Amino acid sequence: MAADRQAEGRERIILGVDPGTRITGFGVIAVERGNILLLQFGILQLAKYSGHELKLKKIFDRMILLIDEFHPDEMAIEAPFYGKNIQSMLKLGRAQGVAIAAALSRDIPIREYAPKKVKQAVTGKGNASKEQVAGMLQNIFRFPDPPALLDATDALAVALCHAYNLNPRQEKAKSWTSFLKENPQRVKGGL
Amino acid sequence: MAADRQAEGRERIILGVDPGTRITGFGVIAVERGNILLLQFGILQLAKYSGHELKLKKIFDRMILLIDEFHPDEMAIEAPFYGKNIQSMLKLGRAQGVAIAAALSRDIPIREYAPKKVKQAVTGKGNASKEQVAGMLQNIFRFPDPPALLDATDALAVALCHAYNLNPRQEKAKSWTSFLKENPQRVKGGL
Repeated sequence: MAADRQAEGRERIILGVDPGTRITGFGVIAVERGNILLLQFGILQLAKYSGHELKLKKIFDRMILLIDEFHPDEMAIEAPFYGKNIQSMLKLGRAQGVAIAAALSRDIPIREYAPKKVKQAVTGKGNASKEQVAGMLQNIFRFPDPPALLDATDALAVALCHAYNLNPRQEKAKSWTSFLKENPQRVKGGL
Repeated sequence: MAADRQAEGRERIILGVDPGTRITGFGVIAVERGNILLLQFGILQLAKYSGHELKLKKIFDRMILLIDEFHPDEMAIEAPFYGKNIQSMLKLGRAQGVAIAAALSRDIPIREYAPKKVKQAVTGKGNASKEQVAGMLQNIFRFPDPPALLDATDALAVALCHAYNLNPRQEKAKSWTSFLKENPQRVKGGL
C-alpha cells in the first residue's frame, strides 16, 4: 500500500525515532514529489521519571500518539548495535522494544539503520559529528536551533536516511520557512 | 482495582512471561482464596522465524492474545539483568520491551523478578537448577512433562513467585487434576 502511494506521487510519511531511556528523540517528515517536509520533531525527556517502566510507558504512549496523529507509512529507527556495557544495552533494547511494539501494534513497517549509515546518508560521512549532522539538517529544514533540539536531530536524521533510501534521487528538501508559510495547520509544537 | 478484587476474595489472574528471541515462555495462573490454579502455559518457538522484527511481532501478538483472553491483573516478568554479551542483552532487552509494551498497551501493571528471586520463591533455593524448579512446579500443578514444556517453566515460576509475593501465606496450590475436573472449560491448549 505504501508502495502504491509512492508510485502515485502522493505523500509518504516517515516517523524517525532515536529511542533511549534518558532521552527519546522523534522526527516526522513527509516525502512528496521530490520534496521532503518536516512536520514535527522533538524529544521526550525521561530522566525526570523515576521507575524504568514509567519511562517505557512514556515512550510507548508518545509513539502511539505520533502514529495516530500522522499515520506514518513507516517507522525508521536509529539502532546502535553496540554500547558501553551490558546494563545500558539491556535498557536500550527495552526502549527500542517498546518503540517497535508501538509500530507493530498499528501494523506499521519498521526499518532499522545503524548510526554510521544514518550519518553517511545525511552528511556523506559515516563518522560525522552530532553537530555536523545537526548542521546539515538545519540547512535542509531551516529550523531554529535551541540547544534542546540537538537531541532530536538523530531521530530526524534517521527519518531522512530512510527517505533517501526509498528514492536516492529525492535529496532536495523544501525549506522549513516555505513549508510553514504553505502549511500552517500541519505544524505542531513538539519541542 | 486489583487490590479490591483481592480483598473481596475473588480470583486474581497473573500472566508470567519469560521473554527471549529464541523461545518466549508464558504461564497464566489464577489465585483465589488460597488456591493457585494453572490456566495455561506454553512456549513460543521463535527460532523458526527469520527476521528479528518478525520474532518481536510474534511475542507482542501472543501477549496481546493472552491478555485479551485471560484479562490478567498483573504481568510478572522474569528479567535477567546480566547476560553473555552485549549483543544478546540488546536482543533480550527488545524481547522484554515488546512484552512490557503489550501489558502497557492494556494498562496492566508489570512486576519484574530476577531469576534468583524466582528460584528462591519457588524452591526455597536461589541457585536451584531448571530441573529442580520444573520438578517443584510439576509437584504443585500436576502437569504432564513432555520435554518441550521445560522452557515454559520459568514463565510459570515467575507467575507463582508473584502470587507468593502478593500473599506469602498463599503457598498451597490446588492440583492440576482436580482443577481439570472442576473447570474443563478453562483449560486451553497452549503447549
